[in-house]
Amino acid sequence: MNSAILLISCPDQKGITAQVSSFISKNNGNIEHADQHIDNQTNTFFMRIEWSLRNFSIPKESITKEFSALAKKFNMHYSLSFSESIPRVAVFASRSLHCLHDLLLRHAEGQLRCKIVLVISNHSDAKKIVNDFGAKFFEFPVTRKTKSQVEAKTADLLIREKVDLLILARYAQILTKKFLDKFPNRIINIHHSFLPAFIGENPYGQAYRRGVKIIGATSHYVTEELDAGPIIEQDTVRINHRDTIADLKIKGQDLEKIVLSRAVRWHLERKILIYNNKTVVFD
Amino acid sequence: MNSAILLISCPDQKGITAQVSSFISKNNGNIEHADQHIDNQTNTFFMRIEWSLRNFSIPKESITKEFSALAKKFNMHYSLSFSESIPRVAVFASRSLHCLHDLLLRHAEGQLRCKIVLVISNHSDAKKIVNDFGAKFFEFPVTRKTKSQVEAKTADLLIREKVDLLILARYAQILTKKFLDKFPNRIINIHHSFLPAFIGENPYGQAYRRGVKIIGATSHYVTEELDAGPIIEQDTVRINHRDTIADLKIKGQDLEKIVLSRAVRWHLERKILIYNNKTVVFD
Amino acid sequence: MNSAILLISCPDQKGITAQVSSFISKNNGNIEHADQHIDNQTNTFFMRIEWSLRNFSIPKESITKEFSALAKKFNMHYSLSFSESIPRVAVFASRSLHCLHDLLLRHAEGQLRCKIVLVISNHSDAKKIVNDFGAKFFEFPVTRKTKSQVEAKTADLLIREKVDLLILARYAQILTKKFLDKFPNRIINIHHSFLPAFIGENPYGQAYRRGVKIIGATSHYVTEELDAGPIIEQDTVRINHRDTIADLKIKGQDLEKIVLSRAVRWHLERKILIYNNKTVVFD
Amino acid sequence: MNSAILLISCPDQKGITAQVSSFISKNNGNIEHADQHIDNQTNTFFMRIEWSLRNFSIPKESITKEFSALAKKFNMHYSLSFSESIPRVAVFASRSLHCLHDLLLRHAEGQLRCKIVLVISNHSDAKKIVNDFGAKFFEFPVTRKTKSQVEAKTADLLIREKVDLLILARYAQILTKKFLDKFPNRIINIHHSFLPAFIGENPYGQAYRRGVKIIGATSHYVTEELDAGPIIEQDTVRINHRDTIADLKIKGQDLEKIVLSRAVRWHLERKILIYNNKTVVFD
Repeated sequence: MNSAILLISCPDQKGITAQVSSFISKNNGNIEHADQHIDNQTNTFFMRIEWSLRNFSIPKESITKEFSALAKKFNMHYSLSFSESIPRVAVFASRSLHCLHDLLLRHAEGQLRCKIVLVISNHSDAKKIVNDFGAKFFEFPVTRKTKSQVEAKTADLLIREKVDLLILARYAQILTKKFLDKFPNRIINIHHSFLPAFIGENPYGQAYRRGVKIIGATSHYVTEELDAGPIIEQDTVRINHRDTIADLKIKGQDLEKIVLSRAVRWHLERKILIYNNKTVVFD
Repeated sequence: MNSAILLISCPDQKGITAQVSSFISKNNGNIEHADQHIDNQTNTFFMRIEWSLRNFSIPKESITKEFSALAKKFNMHYSLSFSESIPRVAVFASRSLHCLHDLLLRHAEGQLRCKIVLVISNHSDAKKIVNDFGAKFFEFPVTRKTKSQVEAKTADLLIREKVDLLILARYAQILTKKFLDKFPNRIINIHHSFLPAFIGENPYGQAYRRGVKIIGATSHYVTEELDAGPIIEQDTVRINHRDTIADLKIKGQDLEKIVLSRAVRWHLERKILIYNNKTVVFD
Repeated sequence: MNSAILLISCPDQKGITAQVSSFISKNNGNIEHADQHIDNQTNTFFMRIEWSLRNFSIPKESITKEFSALAKKFNMHYSLSFSESIPRVAVFASRSLHCLHDLLLRHAEGQLRCKIVLVISNHSDAKKIVNDFGAKFFEFPVTRKTKSQVEAKTADLLIREKVDLLILARYAQILTKKFLDKFPNRIINIHHSFLPAFIGENPYGQAYRRGVKIIGATSHYVTEELDAGPIIEQDTVRINHRDTIADLKIKGQDLEKIVLSRAVRWHLERKILIYNNKTVVFD
Repeated sequence: MNSAILLISCPDQKGITAQVSSFISKNNGNIEHADQHIDNQTNTFFMRIEWSLRNFSIPKESITKEFSALAKKFNMHYSLSFSESIPRVAVFASRSLHCLHDLLLRHAEGQLRCKIVLVISNHSDAKKIVNDFGAKFFEFPVTRKTKSQVEAKTADLLIREKVDLLILARYAQILTKKFLDKFPNRIINIHHSFLPAFIGENPYGQAYRRGVKIIGATSHYVTEELDAGPIIEQDTVRINHRDTIADLKIKGQDLEKIVLSRAVRWHLERKILIYNNKTVVFD
């Protein structure tokens, strides 16, 4: 059954929950999930509400229009989406392919409700497995000289393919502001450290040299500042003095796969609200 | 500021969220927290809603009466409480005193919003520290012969002292059904294993002999069947072959303290709903 | 470089470490790893010692003979192996293929030092991916009637293929004592619960009904008693009341993959000693 | 029974394990624990070896002398200690007293094999509880002006009291190089973040603002550079968007207590070797 999902943020005041839920129930919608959160420091109200469209008296095309009065009254930022619409996804990879493999397998097993339309890589290694799993593969090598040209070509392709979400699955290139601005809040990256520790290159080497006893992985939305975007999910695993950098990589890769796939799943299920360079995850 | 807290469970149907939140906002209450959950297997609706009583147009004494029509309409089980009312707590202990110590310290540090009225033990060891922390101490030794008599005396004391919550902080006696029936859903126990593994006596010895690689602790409401009541919280910690039973105890005690204190805090903050021998924890 | 690995267990007494390490260094071997453990309850000594064979004065064929006097003196159980010998592995699967997929991918990425010779399944689903990854696939359907016949055929195949290790990657058939006895301490299973909780069928359903707040996975050597063999590794993940049984499966599958692959890796690296239905893992 | 403990580090070469263990067994010592580690990047050998002095043919006063030839041959750094000697400890605290409380309680419960000789604070809050637990309490207020004077007085006191280990249990003052140099590798601090993230003041506030999904605590030896000394232990706990800074503090304090107490216990049991601003923990 198709359901509608509203993600709302606005200044907190009396009556928001009551009026939003009344809007739905008066129009004969059955609320299936509702979760809200109030950030007391900024006095901001957040809500995720999902209701069944079976018997809902407003046609889905008109919901935005009908809801607009309420949205205006409370000065809301909001987004409306429908569970039946399947997001179109592009995955970016380089030579470390474990996250790409993991996403392809989870998708094949039905864990990720999306269509993996295409995979882009600056290397050719992943071509065969991507094709085996039924997605298109594009090898776009990048050099300092060709970078802006390649980014332009990439953006065109993504727009032509109506891609909704970009996943950087250990993609080793840094994207420019110009490119990022075309896909705001729609690019998820996995960084192989417990951010904000060990930003940038070779975080496992950095962790090894610092002598930490735990390593981590972080998925976040990509913003212009490197590894500084809104964090969606993190996880950690214990290491000890016996672990070499190679061992850290093996332990860390398990984290990367899990942390990235959770972030992607939450995004696909419209469970994430971004504000203040942070996320509210209604899981 | 005083706030009101409603915990609701009822068969799911359209309009519950809308009508409950409208009841509050029409009477000029500002919703501070709201969380709901629908169990699809049993089609049951659960809600926790908390709102400020500043400017609320219904006096707190009349809220139950005013809410009763709605409660009846949706066939609700519900409980209403107020943040300003401070629960009165009794702690039961025996010879392992780490959980008792931990609760006394957390209370002194302001983590637990309650009054620890009294501590009951079948041994005298805890007397000094309990008195130091300002609670009354009762030594009630228990033998097979005196058990029912001691339980009767204990129940009288608890009722006389208007105790709202009983915490079994590694209390080594099993309470009878007769006693338990006087305090339904109001007795929290800590069991030093990951239930349902290692029920009953000496769980660390059981874990050691089975050769598990992780141990746990479980806090639960006490019901007649041993270690089988609704689970509130659990946590685990990794062990290895070098750990002796004594090491398991040290590692496990850290878990016990954390797991018990979380359960107690959630109970005191009215965040727990019990159904079907399980809990919904709105944390 | 090739190295030799000794796994030793014997009654503890003075001088074992000294004499074993002297045996190696007198013959010009360089110890690369050494770890020992004494179980004080049973007064048992355990050791794993690995040394480089570069310049070692005893040819590898003669090490057992030369070591036998020492082994006899201390009444040792021991096994000698060489890092250059690559274990031959068979994987058993049924319809839940995430663990099989995971093992194939890890192997392809170089994490598992073995040869995956063949995959046996009672269903045909995995055929394509197994062949893609370069292993032989055998579909051996099992019914109550054909079970002993199929097991005999399977055992023959495994012996003919010189298989060293059997991995039950969510294989849904129970193997008989007759079969198990042919591969003692050489069959690793993954059970999708935190053993000893939720033995047997549908552990996620059992966990859901009991209302636990954490679920787990356990890898263990297979013995005749169901899910009761020596535990190699376990891990856990937090769940909450919002998680359906389907959610438990997704969260649990991530654990299963990690826990099974760790156990397999430790076995392949000869890091596991079994005694008393428990394991010492020299990780 | 008294036992001797050797902690050794030296350039790796053939025969170290053999000769050290032979030294012990030839003199009729029974090895109770032995663990070693080789850092391949720096080709450094590390060992912790513990043996019973019952029947050991060298009197404990002469062990160093007898061992010196071996130590010289392999160019060892080493330290020798005896399990019967009870380290003398000083705890430093300020206004956050949970770690101090925790250490006092663990000590009273027998978890920490040391004598807590005295507690020093720049505030008076802890006086009563410290005295209740049988330690001396010194209130040494610190201002910018008096700092060097107070440090000198403190150092004198610690030396007069023959203190072996200093524990900074959320002590809010930064110690000068001059003071630190008097107690090298003998000062353990707890920092309330997952280092190297959130160095310095108010790490919970920093974590809140960055929007991390996990927080941590770190115990480390204190060196001149702030929060940059060798890490002994770390642990982490999950948080979410509902957690306020006050919630982070409560969750974090549980970590701080556990992480600090583990580090202290390992230090007291002579399980820690420091090298390269990192630690090897033979746990």
